[in-house]
Amino acid sequence: MEQSNHAGRLASIVGDANVLTTVEDKAPYLVEWRDLYQGSTPMVLRPGSTEEVSKILKYAYENGLTIVPQGGNTGLVGGQIPTENGGEIVLSLGRMNKVRNIDPVGFTITVESGVVLETLQNEAEKADRLFPLSLGAQGSCQIGGNISTNAGGTAVLAYGNTRDLVLGLEVVLPNGDIWNGLRTLRKDNTGYDLKQLFIGGEGTLGIITAASLKLFPKPKKLEASFVGLPDPHAALKLFSLAKQKAGPVLTGFEIMPRVGVEFCLSHLDGARDPLEAPHNWYVLMELSSGSDAFPVRDLLEEILGEAFEDGLVEDAVLSENLSQVNAFWHIRHGMSEVQKAEGGSIKHDVSVPVAAIADFLDKAISAVSEFVPGCRPVPFGHLGDGNIHFNVSQPVGADKEAYLKNWDAMNEIVHGIVHDFGGSISAEHGIGRLKRDLLKTVKSDTELDLMHRIKDAFDPKGLLNPGRVL
Amino acid sequence: MEQSNHAGRLASIVGDANVLTTVEDKAPYLVEWRDLYQGSTPMVLRPGSTEEVSKILKYAYENGLTIVPQGGNTGLVGGQIPTENGGEIVLSLGRMNKVRNIDPVGFTITVESGVVLETLQNEAEKADRLFPLSLGAQGSCQIGGNISTNAGGTAVLAYGNTRDLVLGLEVVLPNGDIWNGLRTLRKDNTGYDLKQLFIGGEGTLGIITAASLKLFPKPKKLEASFVGLPDPHAALKLFSLAKQKAGPVLTGFEIMPRVGVEFCLSHLDGARDPLEAPHNWYVLMELSSGSDAFPVRDLLEEILGEAFEDGLVEDAVLSENLSQVNAFWHIRHGMSEVQKAEGGSIKHDVSVPVAAIADFLDKAISAVSEFVPGCRPVPFGHLGDGNIHFNVSQPVGADKEAYLKNWDAMNEIVHGIVHDFGGSISAEHGIGRLKRDLLKTVKSDTELDLMHRIKDAFDPKGLLNPGRVL
Repeated sequence: MEQSNHAGRLASIVGDANVLTTVEDKAPYLVEWRDLYQGSTPMVLRPGSTEEVSKILKYAYENGLTIVPQGGNTGLVGGQIPTENGGEIVLSLGRMNKVRNIDPVGFTITVESGVVLETLQNEAEKADRLFPLSLGAQGSCQIGGNISTNAGGTAVLAYGNTRDLVLGLEVVLPNGDIWNGLRTLRKDNTGYDLKQLFIGGEGTLGIITAASLKLFPKPKKLEASFVGLPDPHAALKLFSLAKQKAGPVLTGFEIMPRVGVEFCLSHLDGARDPLEAPHNWYVLMELSSGSDAFPVRDLLEEILGEAFEDGLVEDAVLSENLSQVNAFWHIRHGMSEVQKAEGGSIKHDVSVPVAAIADFLDKAISAVSEFVPGCRPVPFGHLGDGNIHFNVSQPVGADKEAYLKNWDAMNEIVHGIVHDFGGSISAEHGIGRLKRDLLKTVKSDTELDLMHRIKDAFDPKGLLNPGRVL
Repeated sequence: MEQSNHAGRLASIVGDANVLTTVEDKAPYLVEWRDLYQGSTPMVLRPGSTEEVSKILKYAYENGLTIVPQGGNTGLVGGQIPTENGGEIVLSLGRMNKVRNIDPVGFTITVESGVVLETLQNEAEKADRLFPLSLGAQGSCQIGGNISTNAGGTAVLAYGNTRDLVLGLEVVLPNGDIWNGLRTLRKDNTGYDLKQLFIGGEGTLGIITAASLKLFPKPKKLEASFVGLPDPHAALKLFSLAKQKAGPVLTGFEIMPRVGVEFCLSHLDGARDPLEAPHNWYVLMELSSGSDAFPVRDLLEEILGEAFEDGLVEDAVLSENLSQVNAFWHIRHGMSEVQKAEGGSIKHDVSVPVAAIADFLDKAISAVSEFVPGCRPVPFGHLGDGNIHFNVSQPVGADKEAYLKNWDAMNEIVHGIVHDFGGSISAEHGIGRLKRDLLKTVKSDTELDLMHRIKDAFDPKGLLNPGRVL
């Protein structure tokens, strides 16, 4: 059947206005912000309900059409962008943006997958609750995409990854069947935990249409400190000290190098250097408590006092109010985008066991510096989770295209070091299309075989986000 | 091939001493403590290493032998007991009891699956760390079984179910292949999260041989209170108040009825009534913090003070020392076993959304009391998780066998009410053989079909723990 006929049939499901076929209408769905992928598609479908998603997938299943689900289009590994060959239909979840239920007593919220993360945070806040997932793209990413990629972010230390926040899912399967797994139970041991496969499944096993999520008491007290340190070894020791003393009250521990802070000072609106003199490394440490009774400020001062005595810390500033806390986080959250202004950047999203993070940074920094003399490593991120965005900016004045030709070779060097430490080549961004070939090099045949068996069991025709992950 | 020949071949893998074939040697592996199941087996195999487990499963796969994995044999749904037909070989993990590694800085421990839970708790403690999983059977249950059944227990409120404590697994697959997924990473988004299927998989998809687990800061301050209340509605309000004020510092919230406390006073060594007068209902509330800085005692007093003012609480005693905390928990942990001494008991391990727990208890108590006049409901457990062990003891002086004939009919009544509240018929004990038929009545065809597809993909010959779960 011709594409135009498919479009007509699909329009009868979602309505004419929700089948986008012109170049202009489709454009925003076909590129992502790093410009790594540019896709092509016969149409973008924008269903408004679970039933419509079900009917679309049933039609696609019967007619052998491939479908690429897309949320807020903020993914970093190309999973949400159709291929260039023009055969993949984009299914955008953005219109499914209702909050279905919120239960403050049971600390749960049930939302459709197109709800923007920031909206979800705000809905929780209105009910005097916290939805803790927090990341740079929160103003546009959607919760369905967050779940499909098991998003990480800056609150993982205390609250876990997105996976840990999900109580139940509603999913449309590749054949159009709806699985209603929307439970709000804290405990449920009735058979295999199917939702776990869709979480982090990157849309290859089913399309998440709604989710029941955990809420938490809203932090009553929140304090942060911006700390200057000599090196990552001092940062790791500071982390151990803080974790030991604060336990779950330690809700953020992010590391940044001087060069990253300088990039922010040059290119990020409203960024100011929190400390007077420059330091080689920085840590943004946040403590917060859902209880009024906790002396958060005293504890933060105690941790820093001890760290000064131990020679771990060179200088530190404590937040005086919430807007200063936000100013610290502004720098941290801006650290990704400012790299664009400094030319080419070769990216790695890696993790190692927390105890190995300083040794990993030593080795990786020295290896890439040897490989491309003059390159500027900007490794930053979630030290408390062992997760570093090991990004490497081009040497000043170098040719961007020429520099980026080192991408695969530099990846190989860094991932080799990650491997030696028993780490992961994709800590929080997923596999998508970007790391699909890499996956084969880091997983055993046994593990890849199990993944293929699952994919075949769920999507025997291979129509849902094909070529992503596997 | 004759069983004796199989025994010989398998003995060449594990050694003669580790193939048990006499009636006396096999006996402890063939009954469980509730006496609900009595099994038969040609032999019990006791491998000492992952390689031996791998060779056994490979041999079983080639020869079509069915295998029932068994840990500490404390499961409550018959999953670990071979059937009566005598065809299933028991594979006991008890000899695989090594701690492979402990990393206090990274807060992780890697152990073999035969390590007894209490041993694991002690190993963590020696390193000044907490492994929080805690349940009545901890002196004999093994961590491999805990993981395979996604055990719950009394620390779920603050630390989650066993699922939430697992970072990585080593699993022997039904064909004998070893999957090494023993990672200690806090973040890893490289494809489907396979370990989630083995967690709570009840040994039907593979045999867990080792696990990497999360550790936590050891509680520096621990306080508990034994509270007398009029009814579960007051208990739910107390829970909301405590959760709001204490957040993650609220580490235990257990409900018990008067009759259960009376059973303990009659049948449990060393049990004393913590309160002077009797109350219809009790709550054991525990607060603890990994930080010295937290005024845990003050907060507990503040919560109880407010609860008194609101008329939620009739009386309360606060622990004066750790042995008093333990005395409170002694009653709670003893509540399951003491029911044996009071004749027949019909069991339900159910959960509902936390906010619905008081309404559920009202309805279920009145329904079973109408069904069997004079029966004694002893619903107790993890109110903070929405999880109640809804056990119903026989009327005083009734005939035990005759009473137990009501099992299925009473289950149907209680599970119907659970269903109306969107709850689960197996909150933490799993499905095993006991609830296999029930599963078909509470899951959609879509969900059951997905589970079967997974089982077929992992264990196409159906040799591993057949007839459990599905």
